Amino acid sequence: MRRMPTYLHRLIWLRNEGEEWVSCADLAAYMNIPHILVRKDIAMTGLPGNKRYGFHVVDLINAILKFVGWADATTATLVGAGSLGSALLGFADFQAYNFRIETVFDASPQKVGTTIHGYTVFDFADIQKKLQNNPPKVGVICVPDTAAQTVANTLVSLGIKYIWNFANVCLKVPEDVIVQREVISGGLAVLSAKIKTLEEGDDIQPAEE
Amino acid sequence: MRRMPTYLHRLIWLRNEGEEWVSCADLAAYMNIPHILVRKDIAMTGLPGNKRYGFHVVDLINAILKFVGWADATTATLVGAGSLGSALLGFADFQAYNFRIETVFDASPQKVGTTIHGYTVFDFADIQKKLQNNPPKVGVICVPDTAAQTVANTLVSLGIKYIWNFANVCLKVPEDVIVQREVISGGLAVLSAKIKTLEEGDDIQPAEE
Repeated sequence: MRRMPTYLHRLIWLRNEGEEWVSCADLAAYMNIPHILVRKDIAMTGLPGNKRYGFHVVDLINAILKFVGWADATTATLVGAGSLGSALLGFADFQAYNFRIETVFDASPQKVGTTIHGYTVFDFADIQKKLQNNPPKVGVICVPDTAAQTVANTLVSLGIKYIWNFANVCLKVPEDVIVQREVISGGLAVLSAKIKTLEEGDDIQPAEE
Repeated sequence: MRRMPTYLHRLIWLRNEGEEWVSCADLAAYMNIPHILVRKDIAMTGLPGNKRYGFHVVDLINAILKFVGWADATTATLVGAGSLGSALLGFADFQAYNFRIETVFDASPQKVGTTIHGYTVFDFADIQKKLQNNPPKVGVICVPDTAAQTVANTLVSLGIKYIWNFANVCLKVPEDVIVQREVISGGLAVLSAKIKTLEEGDDIQPAEE
């Protein structure tokens, strides 16, 4: 599932370049992963290929969007407009994924009222008032670790059932709430284990991601 | 491997709280993952537990640091001091991982010469001159997608063999260079697939991460 955005990103680029067809081999070479892995991933979307030309680029884009759940819009609110939050607000691909950040909140008086990548930052103190009648589907948490649980509690109280959490803390939420946590340093752990293996001749092989 | 930073983060917190021992059950409850998974992960580090008390917190921190390859310092340079780069420069846990960003480069005249989280931003045009005599182990790429390959080529030409790439592009590098790519929207794909499964009664189960 984690490879799907990369396929999409490449396919959208190919579409914009005017390419009509793509082969598993092309995608595999671009991503530097085995051919068979690409074939399996695409098979999961259910799109049939053409023996001669491979896959139709636009059809494959739509098949992946449908498979991942991005065919329809997903609404979201983002809390925490610091550097990481700002980076997310500037992430162009969200539009392709129909992921729509509708509101942005921050508790800092320096941030409230400013505009970041076209989004006005609202005061976190007003989140109940602003969202209670029409809460978005997803809450994105980009606040410091110490504030993350409080923010999560507020999002849950608004009826938000899905949380994308970038704070380095495991949130306590009711059982019917789904939290997807991003551990930015997870990739560094994988990389460091590879460095160790390669440079120290260590025979512990890091797990495949 | 990706769970190791989360264990470390929690263990360091426990150590700072004055806790001497921790059980697999404690860590499993905190992370909301199965007990057996924690047990297997810790077993990989080779640290023996105590039947009565569980694992010694400080010993487990050291065992994980050693296992991941973070017992000794890893030097790094970061290229691209935009929002994402700034977020990484402010990431407090890198110190615990002995991950030492020594230099920061950006090509934008607005950034060069400024200080971000205590790091002075140097001109990317000077990177050869500054790093050629003593290149760091890792290059962190936080530049826009269109600039990422050029930056990677420069890092490789400096003798850097490990790249942590946050740009949304698959880099072409020589075979002896390792690239760890972070796909921030990968987590969103996992979350969206869960939403789809839960809300549409779809029977395609997203792959476990």
